[in-house]
Amino acid sequence: MTDARQLWERARTQHFSDAGLGFALDISRMDIDDAFFAAHAEDAQRALAAMAALERGAVANPDEQRMVGHYWLRAPHLAPSLTERRAIEDTLAAILRFAADVHGGRLRTERGERFGNVLVVGIGGSALGPQFVADALGSATDRLRPFFFDNTDPDGIDRVLDQLEPTGGLARTLTVVISKSGGTKETRNGMLEAQAAYRAAGLAPERHLVAITQEGSELDRVAVAQRWLARFPMWDWVGGRTSELSAVGLLPAALQGLDVAGMLAGAAAMDELTRTTNVRQNPGLLLALAWRKATGGRGAKDMVVLPYKDRLALVSKYLQQLVMESLGKEKDLDGNVVHQGLAVYGNKGSTDQHAYVQQLRDGVANFFVTFIQVLKERRASSLQVEPGVTAGDYLFGFLLGTRRALYDGGRPSVTLTFDDVTPAAVGALIALFERAVGFYATFVNVNAYHQPGVEAGKKAAQAVIALQAKVIAALPHDGDGATVDALAAQAGAPAEVETVWRICEHLTANGRARRVPGTTPFTARYLA
Amino acid sequence: MTDARQLWERARTQHFSDAGLGFALDISRMDIDDAFFAAHAEDAQRALAAMAALERGAVANPDEQRMVGHYWLRAPHLAPSLTERRAIEDTLAAILRFAADVHGGRLRTERGERFGNVLVVGIGGSALGPQFVADALGSATDRLRPFFFDNTDPDGIDRVLDQLEPTGGLARTLTVVISKSGGTKETRNGMLEAQAAYRAAGLAPERHLVAITQEGSELDRVAVAQRWLARFPMWDWVGGRTSELSAVGLLPAALQGLDVAGMLAGAAAMDELTRTTNVRQNPGLLLALAWRKATGGRGAKDMVVLPYKDRLALVSKYLQQLVMESLGKEKDLDGNVVHQGLAVYGNKGSTDQHAYVQQLRDGVANFFVTFIQVLKERRASSLQVEPGVTAGDYLFGFLLGTRRALYDGGRPSVTLTFDDVTPAAVGALIALFERAVGFYATFVNVNAYHQPGVEAGKKAAQAVIALQAKVIAALPHDGDGATVDALAAQAGAPAEVETVWRICEHLTANGRARRVPGTTPFTARYLA
Repeated sequence: MTDARQLWERARTQHFSDAGLGFALDISRMDIDDAFFAAHAEDAQRALAAMAALERGAVANPDEQRMVGHYWLRAPHLAPSLTERRAIEDTLAAILRFAADVHGGRLRTERGERFGNVLVVGIGGSALGPQFVADALGSATDRLRPFFFDNTDPDGIDRVLDQLEPTGGLARTLTVVISKSGGTKETRNGMLEAQAAYRAAGLAPERHLVAITQEGSELDRVAVAQRWLARFPMWDWVGGRTSELSAVGLLPAALQGLDVAGMLAGAAAMDELTRTTNVRQNPGLLLALAWRKATGGRGAKDMVVLPYKDRLALVSKYLQQLVMESLGKEKDLDGNVVHQGLAVYGNKGSTDQHAYVQQLRDGVANFFVTFIQVLKERRASSLQVEPGVTAGDYLFGFLLGTRRALYDGGRPSVTLTFDDVTPAAVGALIALFERAVGFYATFVNVNAYHQPGVEAGKKAAQAVIALQAKVIAALPHDGDGATVDALAAQAGAPAEVETVWRICEHLTANGRARRVPGTTPFTARYLA
Repeated sequence: MTDARQLWERARTQHFSDAGLGFALDISRMDIDDAFFAAHAEDAQRALAAMAALERGAVANPDEQRMVGHYWLRAPHLAPSLTERRAIEDTLAAILRFAADVHGGRLRTERGERFGNVLVVGIGGSALGPQFVADALGSATDRLRPFFFDNTDPDGIDRVLDQLEPTGGLARTLTVVISKSGGTKETRNGMLEAQAAYRAAGLAPERHLVAITQEGSELDRVAVAQRWLARFPMWDWVGGRTSELSAVGLLPAALQGLDVAGMLAGAAAMDELTRTTNVRQNPGLLLALAWRKATGGRGAKDMVVLPYKDRLALVSKYLQQLVMESLGKEKDLDGNVVHQGLAVYGNKGSTDQHAYVQQLRDGVANFFVTFIQVLKERRASSLQVEPGVTAGDYLFGFLLGTRRALYDGGRPSVTLTFDDVTPAAVGALIALFERAVGFYATFVNVNAYHQPGVEAGKKAAQAVIALQAKVIAALPHDGDGATVDALAAQAGAPAEVETVWRICEHLTANGRARRVPGTTPFTARYLA
């Protein structure tokens, strides 16, 4: 614990700000000293060099032998060849043209009305960015209202369809199906559910559908064959979790009526700032160094994200993916088993003050906080809730109060400050964390741009679905029913009795099998 | 790692289910053996005894010298005296009567219309439960549509007011202000903002307002003086984070048209199950023991909550408060400094598979997972996305696949299964975690029912607001402006220069001060 005077000294020397962008980063509550900067000076230069190579088009994702080009999206002139540059520029132009056609009523619904809703079908990198931006920048004056199918939950899909009803239902809805690979099963299922719902409403799905995917993918072929309204490209050099400023994020945002040029400009400005070789003037390096200080470079602490602004509440989910999927790796680039990562969670202040800040203040010291402050309170002027005091003064007071109470209890924090939640600020926020993740990955020597661990769960899921088909085929149609042991044997998976039992219970609950109860849940018998 | 056959053995012996409640708990993937049960048998009986005493009316919150009575809410006959019993029963009757009056059109808006929206103004324990339940059980057929002011963010308040517009705005909105103490500043601010918005719309606020608070509180006095529509009581023996089945949760749910009797019955049934003295037949003890196994009783691992059901996505936020605010304590009951806790985060499956499951599978092994499965897919029958396969089969397959992939990688998990998301299931889920938290608190010897650490942040926030008033008074009205050092000195807080600087920036951004730029952000001068 350091006294207020000393902290003020540190605040002035460990404070980065950029007036043009309306942004500041304060790492003064991370207890970083000059010796730490000195000890990590070489690493910082190494990270800058690796990033510069990445930006020049090096194969920065060695596992998949890919370039990593999300920084070119907001500075196409930096792309390594004219091919990428033109792809980026042409796609942006096509997005703006398409959105203008929709807003201007040149592209209308099957029934000749204007589109009023945009339904995004996507998951992970194809949903979290669009959801974050839609919520951060959306307002009652949105040109199209945004909705999402972001899972393969049938009930969840039904809920979204219900929510569309008050604003004209599917008849007034443009649906954007997003899958970089074009083969993501959850998204494929969402697309099929949406198509069935259009048909059930007496509508022709292809008159409402747009695809964003890599050329030649399964989704691309479907969109071509069915003559969808439009297709926009993704490229193998843009990863899902860094795709918000590609068509994935820009098309939904443009349709919603948001200022995508502003978002790109904000990201480009932050990219410029985070290329600075002077460590103390590079907010991306400062942030990555703060993470290293907090976690020992081993993920020893969680990052709790607390934006004091309701419209930024989804930033923690967005960063959860960006940070954890990038850094959470089994092996380092040399093949050593390292089990790296940095867990991220959070919601919003001061709401969370009344939820889990009790533990943050008093409990397990297994975290550091990232506060996000927004200076501008609201569009109109504020009511006084006490003489001379606004609701926003309380929001501000709770941020500073919590920051201080945590620091006094030995809990460090970083504070980001934005003048306002503008398109440029949102672009800058995204770019800042993309860069910090890249730098930190160099510090801990991991590939930030692949996700090999996701495959294990997908394969295991496909195995369950394949086994389910065999169980369905093995279910007797009459008689006493079969035990799970018998079904497992007949399905050719005698060791997989637990999975077979769970499959039988799942089928029974949905009217696709019948259960003859046994003396325990595990001795039930099942019939088709 | 254990093979599938051995896991099946364990699944059958470490599986609790209750057909009546449509609920099952599986701890077989926590690697708990008989020796662990034996080693904790005494603790388990101690936890049962402490809980029995609590339910009989012992002072279970010694710090605040209070009884802890949330279990009586769903079994009023268990209350220690007729006073509590009658208070619970009368309140429930009053809630149902009030909701029936609103639904039946006997209680109408100022303009004689039926109410269409319910706006809940509350934070923490007065918002997280109502939000979770509203989302879990809500549908397009809700009697009133639920909205929330759950923060003191002016822009967030404006957004909610905008969202009310399509369904009639404030003119058709009943506002329920919830604050147990009646003095929570965020809620007071939300109430004042709501009242101002009613007035701005030409409406009399008191014709739309209802209070839930302790008798005689600041909020209660306001509601009496202003002749609000109704008041419902809270009691000092119900804590905020366990208040969902008091008026706090039941009134909003009843107004929304949800089956509150079903919720209470589900909670009562789970309470019965978790009173069982046979540890292996007590799901509350099984869960608390699983937490102990995972965390070593020291909060060494985070709990990641993954409900595979969109409508349960808020359960992680609800549990974040319930678990972290209850268990995250500096001192144990004997006054030893222990820094206890159990960090909770999560969102929903299989969405999170495409976000941070990469890290869960491959990265830092600092967590265990709580899977929540729901057997019933949807109301209607499902489309086939492949021959014989539904979107729900994929949801199910991803749950089992992720569970297996994590376990194969040495990451343990608990699985809760519900037949369907019914009011009883939601009540049971709440009751299960309330009980597990209580048991675990006995294991680690902390008071689960106070939150002393929240005060530090509140006091620090009030100090910021008080200092702001002094800074405003000290701002010169003309001339070159004052430096932050001068303002801090004049405000009588010469050491608090950083806070004064942040106050000046906050005021400037909101048009309440003017800034004369300096050569650095810290050498600016400020004017009124």
